[in-house]
Amino acid sequence: MFLIWVFQLVGLNSGFGLNSGLNQSLTYIWPLPCEHTSGNETLTVNPALSLSIIGHGGSFRILREGFRRYKRIIFKFSSGISVSKNSRRIRSLYDISALRIIVKSGSDELNKTEGKSVVWETIIEASTIYGALRGLETFSQLCAFDYTTKSVQISRAPWYIKDKPRFAYRGLLLDTDAFPLEVPAYPKLWNGAYSKWERYTVEDASRIVSFSYYLAWCTAGIHVMAEVDVPGHAESWGTGYPDLWPNATCREPLDVTKNFTFDLISGILSEIREIFPFELFHLGGDEVNTDLWDSFVLTDCWNKTRHVKQWLDDNKMKPKDAYRYFVLKAQEIAISKNWTPVNWEETFNAFAKSLNPRTVVHNWLGPGVCPKAVAKGFKCIFSNQNVWYLDHLDVSWDEVYYAEPLEGIGNKSKQELVIGGEVCMWGETVDTSNVQQTIWPRAAAAAERLWSTEEALSADNITVLQRLQYFRCLLNRRGVQAAPVTNYYARNPPSGSGSCYWQ
Amino acid sequence: MFLIWVFQLVGLNSGFGLNSGLNQSLTYIWPLPCEHTSGNETLTVNPALSLSIIGHGGSFRILREGFRRYKRIIFKFSSGISVSKNSRRIRSLYDISALRIIVKSGSDELNKTEGKSVVWETIIEASTIYGALRGLETFSQLCAFDYTTKSVQISRAPWYIKDKPRFAYRGLLLDTDAFPLEVPAYPKLWNGAYSKWERYTVEDASRIVSFSYYLAWCTAGIHVMAEVDVPGHAESWGTGYPDLWPNATCREPLDVTKNFTFDLISGILSEIREIFPFELFHLGGDEVNTDLWDSFVLTDCWNKTRHVKQWLDDNKMKPKDAYRYFVLKAQEIAISKNWTPVNWEETFNAFAKSLNPRTVVHNWLGPGVCPKAVAKGFKCIFSNQNVWYLDHLDVSWDEVYYAEPLEGIGNKSKQELVIGGEVCMWGETVDTSNVQQTIWPRAAAAAERLWSTEEALSADNITVLQRLQYFRCLLNRRGVQAAPVTNYYARNPPSGSGSCYWQ
Repeated sequence: MFLIWVFQLVGLNSGFGLNSGLNQSLTYIWPLPCEHTSGNETLTVNPALSLSIIGHGGSFRILREGFRRYKRIIFKFSSGISVSKNSRRIRSLYDISALRIIVKSGSDELNKTEGKSVVWETIIEASTIYGALRGLETFSQLCAFDYTTKSVQISRAPWYIKDKPRFAYRGLLLDTDAFPLEVPAYPKLWNGAYSKWERYTVEDASRIVSFSYYLAWCTAGIHVMAEVDVPGHAESWGTGYPDLWPNATCREPLDVTKNFTFDLISGILSEIREIFPFELFHLGGDEVNTDLWDSFVLTDCWNKTRHVKQWLDDNKMKPKDAYRYFVLKAQEIAISKNWTPVNWEETFNAFAKSLNPRTVVHNWLGPGVCPKAVAKGFKCIFSNQNVWYLDHLDVSWDEVYYAEPLEGIGNKSKQELVIGGEVCMWGETVDTSNVQQTIWPRAAAAAERLWSTEEALSADNITVLQRLQYFRCLLNRRGVQAAPVTNYYARNPPSGSGSCYWQ
Repeated sequence: MFLIWVFQLVGLNSGFGLNSGLNQSLTYIWPLPCEHTSGNETLTVNPALSLSIIGHGGSFRILREGFRRYKRIIFKFSSGISVSKNSRRIRSLYDISALRIIVKSGSDELNKTEGKSVVWETIIEASTIYGALRGLETFSQLCAFDYTTKSVQISRAPWYIKDKPRFAYRGLLLDTDAFPLEVPAYPKLWNGAYSKWERYTVEDASRIVSFSYYLAWCTAGIHVMAEVDVPGHAESWGTGYPDLWPNATCREPLDVTKNFTFDLISGILSEIREIFPFELFHLGGDEVNTDLWDSFVLTDCWNKTRHVKQWLDDNKMKPKDAYRYFVLKAQEIAISKNWTPVNWEETFNAFAKSLNPRTVVHNWLGPGVCPKAVAKGFKCIFSNQNVWYLDHLDVSWDEVYYAEPLEGIGNKSKQELVIGGEVCMWGETVDTSNVQQTIWPRAAAAAERLWSTEEALSADNITVLQRLQYFRCLLNRRGVQAAPVTNYYARNPPSGSGSCYWQ
């Protein structure tokens, strides 16, 4: 939760005229805050903007780093214009020369403080350092470079913004589509990469985690959840360890009969526990062909491999029983490493009663699964493929935007079990050269759904497209290659030359 | 011109085994050097690689900056692995710990030097700092991170590479497709931008020039040529100065009758002369509708506007005469500012005899123009739209690659008048979100055509595709979002998941 105040203590500012061509009555903040009020003043912001942080919450490194990043973004276009830093004369030219962040960790009680020495007071007050980081993002979106005066301005001041996210879990899945991660105890595992150059070392993985948490463009404070998908989608593991395949020609699901299979899973999870400190861990469990799902592309290797069939018979199991056995055993391993397991919805659909009650059910096949999962007391993540699978290139921004994770769930306490949602960027239709355009701006549409309250959005209803177009251009300015918003079929060429703001 | 040597003084190295999946006999350097020989050793490169520069050539800032950039690129994947810098013990673990650059400015005579204190000697010897920069690029391409040993290696050492570009002018056109540049003397000119946020200040323009020269990713040493296209394609100028339009409804070509038109051109060129120090300046001159080209989309405003028609009659001119009059007058202005004018081929096609003999003719309409231009003593730039217009999304990499700027020019002294070529990225089919994918890797195909000798390429003939695929992945690793090479129709989704090296 955070508050932003940009308010005037003494009225001295005259303001600059703006002539934007955009509807000035809209609030161009993405995602839209819970509450905000604004005025009619235009303020200038000092390129030598200073930061002071007050409060509790441990190290403020993440905040100071964040401020440094946002300052570079805010003043990107004015950085070539020389300003004598901190000189009294220069400071007096700007309305805003200082930003104060107040962190009241562990408490939701936010108090108004008073400024004394500056004309305009700019304060972010937050419960946690993460709230303060989100507040910095919002503050950065209030700032815009004005080409006429060549200064960074905040229009429509004074601002009062009160905000917090609607859902705690707001995710983006990035598919590596192979097994490229180094696991030192099983050094042949990453032979499952596409080539010897397309791999992640342990150091790479750790850097991804710490980059996301400390430095990621722009907002940081991001957790990384790893997925080790068993028993299906693990064919690449057998490149280095063929014993994991039921047989040489029928390669998935993983061989359920061998101790080696589970020793290896346990070994992987032990080794990567240090890399991924986040409390959730994804165990997959999707698209396993047992007799439940005949239409899936995977062949039923378990029934067709002699020693596996024998083992099934010995244990009086059918393939679907072995599937349950496998998933539950993997869950035990993850829980023993102090992880909360996440599993794709097939596991819930197949054996809800046996699933560990701590399981977070990850929806994807279609609508209506989270209502069933929360009815049985499970937590749920919404990723309905019809709307939130970004590899579906024909899903338009508004289909993404108007998806509702709580659809079909009326009960308030059940609603709280939907921890949030995740847009999924599977690898089949992208590579490194176009993944940004395929993710953005559609991921931003989902982000507002997950962040902003229905009340705030319904008040601002008709403005979504123009606000998203504005935000897409902001992403472009920040170096994210977000595609045009209304571009049917992601990544088509624009319909002609023209402004970013029209697309 | 530059030489790179990686050679062994004392044989101590044992080498590491490689198993790349790629054809190891190919030379994965793009563009292909004039001459190279290689061996069978694999060497390790110290992450604390040091640089020493010897020679003449003024400031070596550009080289030191370049080395710093390339070092970050070369050791990108190993930077998380801690190494005690410069400790004697660590140095002895690596085969290569030092790079020497010898710049012999103004001379093509390159001498072999000897190393004494290290086992492997790595030297770039160049005539100029620019040659040395290109040598750094080549050196960086010799280095590859090996995931097994987690070290940067040079395979196939020792290397001896001798190189220089085939053409001096190797260009990429980036279209802004509006008039977004600030010209302080004419402050309403940049009202011709698409919006108030999509503009370049004078400071922005200067930063683009200095970035290209000093810092551009990766090779720097790039000149920026500006284009002010007159008298056509200047409709946007009239947004701020409607007097430039023949009349309010017929807006281009610029009004040829008014002194204001030429005063403004002179004013623009005066103001931007300081920003763009490069000796060439592009005056456009394309797609002007006179009675010569009835099929062009522009209406013939000059004939249809009463005061312009009157002026034409008074001066006994037809529109095509006024077109010549306009272009020649603009050339005089550019030359008076100490610029060499570049003009699109229409000017040459229409009035070759009147064109200033210093004019560089810029081909685009099709093949066969440079042969005519050089026959008449003009310099020429090759940009045949059938092969080198990147907005033609259906032009495949090999059509770009096998284009030949000297086609139809047998005479050696005439060949030398073709100063090079330029791929053109016009704005109609791209925006900021996909311009990188549309430019790369096809621009690289043209780059090799412009850099590498026919002799070198014919020796390496069958390997082009695999080498370009490798280079495209290198671009991706360096953060350039180059599209798959064989992707018919630029920017289509990949045909499925898989390795970068297969695409």
